[in-house]
Amino acid sequence: MLDVCLLGTGGMMPMPNRYLSSLLLRYNGKMILFDCGEGTQVTLKMQGYGIKPIDAIFFTHFHADHISGLPGMLLTIGNSGRTEPLKLFGPKGLNEVVTGLRKIAQDLPYEVEIIELSKDNQETEEIIVDDFHIKYHFIEHTVTCISYRIDIKRKGKFNVKKALSLDIPKNLWSILQKQGVCEYMGKMYYDTDVLDAARKGISVSFFTDGRPNEKTPEFISGSDLFICESMYAENDKMEKALLNKHMTYSDASTLAKTGQVKELWLTHFSPALSEPELFLDIAKNIFENTVIGYDRLTKTLFFEEKNKPI
Amino acid sequence: MLDVCLLGTGGMMPMPNRYLSSLLLRYNGKMILFDCGEGTQVTLKMQGYGIKPIDAIFFTHFHADHISGLPGMLLTIGNSGRTEPLKLFGPKGLNEVVTGLRKIAQDLPYEVEIIELSKDNQETEEIIVDDFHIKYHFIEHTVTCISYRIDIKRKGKFNVKKALSLDIPKNLWSILQKQGVCEYMGKMYYDTDVLDAARKGISVSFFTDGRPNEKTPEFISGSDLFICESMYAENDKMEKALLNKHMTYSDASTLAKTGQVKELWLTHFSPALSEPELFLDIAKNIFENTVIGYDRLTKTLFFEEKNKPI
Repeated sequence: MLDVCLLGTGGMMPMPNRYLSSLLLRYNGKMILFDCGEGTQVTLKMQGYGIKPIDAIFFTHFHADHISGLPGMLLTIGNSGRTEPLKLFGPKGLNEVVTGLRKIAQDLPYEVEIIELSKDNQETEEIIVDDFHIKYHFIEHTVTCISYRIDIKRKGKFNVKKALSLDIPKNLWSILQKQGVCEYMGKMYYDTDVLDAARKGISVSFFTDGRPNEKTPEFISGSDLFICESMYAENDKMEKALLNKHMTYSDASTLAKTGQVKELWLTHFSPALSEPELFLDIAKNIFENTVIGYDRLTKTLFFEEKNKPI
Repeated sequence: MLDVCLLGTGGMMPMPNRYLSSLLLRYNGKMILFDCGEGTQVTLKMQGYGIKPIDAIFFTHFHADHISGLPGMLLTIGNSGRTEPLKLFGPKGLNEVVTGLRKIAQDLPYEVEIIELSKDNQETEEIIVDDFHIKYHFIEHTVTCISYRIDIKRKGKFNVKKALSLDIPKNLWSILQKQGVCEYMGKMYYDTDVLDAARKGISVSFFTDGRPNEKTPEFISGSDLFICESMYAENDKMEKALLNKHMTYSDASTLAKTGQVKELWLTHFSPALSEPELFLDIAKNIFENTVIGYDRLTKTLFFEEKNKPI
């Protein structure tokens, strides 16, 4: 099962009672983070998941509200006792930005690996961190900006008939399911020979900040959960949204509908939008299954056959 | 009157309900800030003083918990509509650190002036920002670190006898008191000719992080308010305090006593020190007028003759 926690929901600047927009995913005890603005480490502490298991941080872009919490986060991860490398992903320029910010976070007990993502590879590359399979997609903002899609893949069922017909020893069955491959008595065995077709996994898409392009609906298509910026609520803010390359509730819910996602969470609210929930109907009229995000809104997503908490 | 607000009281990392140690002073509508860790802009917003009137930020040192909030602070000051220059003061290296952090805060509608303070000038230089007169003093920490003393000066009383004996026209009396100097009928007049000796002003000292040296008691001497780090509470943490170049409650209160200050506020508590007030007696046994700092602890200091709120 995949835990999804929207650590913060603010845009532009951190506010009392509203941390900056950031997303945490947890699966099998491993965590990855998307964006890390000022205060993200505090709301993460409130969530109580720990900080040491974060294996990677993905940045959408380099506006301060999405990355200003990085130096503190790096140091606090260091204080947690982590020694394993930490991967940082983001657009071109990440190395320069991180180098700048690390002027105040130089001594860390672990290695920081910086991976800059290129527009040229956005349609072909899949990043794998632990069990997270991440794709990325460049969107329209005032600076280069990336949207991410995270898939937890699920293998097919073990096909006993196939296993028997291939004379695979029974003592290897569970090993094959776990490891995917094993050697026994000088012979190699592969799970691909005995598994049915892969089953539907779990997918989450994170879109902030910016506006979609013509390929965005396909990129988020069928996501179990689509987390999308909606800097402005009302439709009369459309002009401002277009000018600043942000989105309104209508924009986000229309994108959710076009992308045929299952559920939409709105986030990255303007500081001027003090009660985002007042405008929920605007989004629901377009896409019914919309939730107004709030700090530490959390949901556990299950694979299809067991999609309810026990 | 001088408003003193301890915006945060945490050391090392920001915590839920405890912002990082930072001090705000406000006098005659102008403000200066000392240290700016992650989240300082949020606790400042809670205080409700506004952000635009900040004319200078003084940094004690470059550990992240004292400066990581700078990029966000600079941007939010920019969003407040400020166009006047903002001064940043700190130890040597400030320019390099600020340049690094500004990788994510490049476009500001005002100029940022960076002034690096040298150990060589610590005993002679006085920085003047608005009505704040600031002296600095290098203390003992794991990195170069500065303690600050802020004085609000007060002129002497207007001496009518002197003014009459010098034939200073009565219509210039109030102008002289306000402006200090004026020209009238081709002649220059100076307030120094007609004022009694300067009266006692208001002084505040801010000491974090580090341990005192032999000149520290003199530096803080007679402060109306001494705000001092006390990373650790109990005396059995002394070894740790010495090792990490921090202070215990006993250290801080002993320094307050030696420096003959009027009041001591403790701040910069270790994240492990969840209830700093439980150990107040340790300090009070050494220096009675001790207050355990908490976020946004605020006090208004008056000149002596009117030292109580009306």
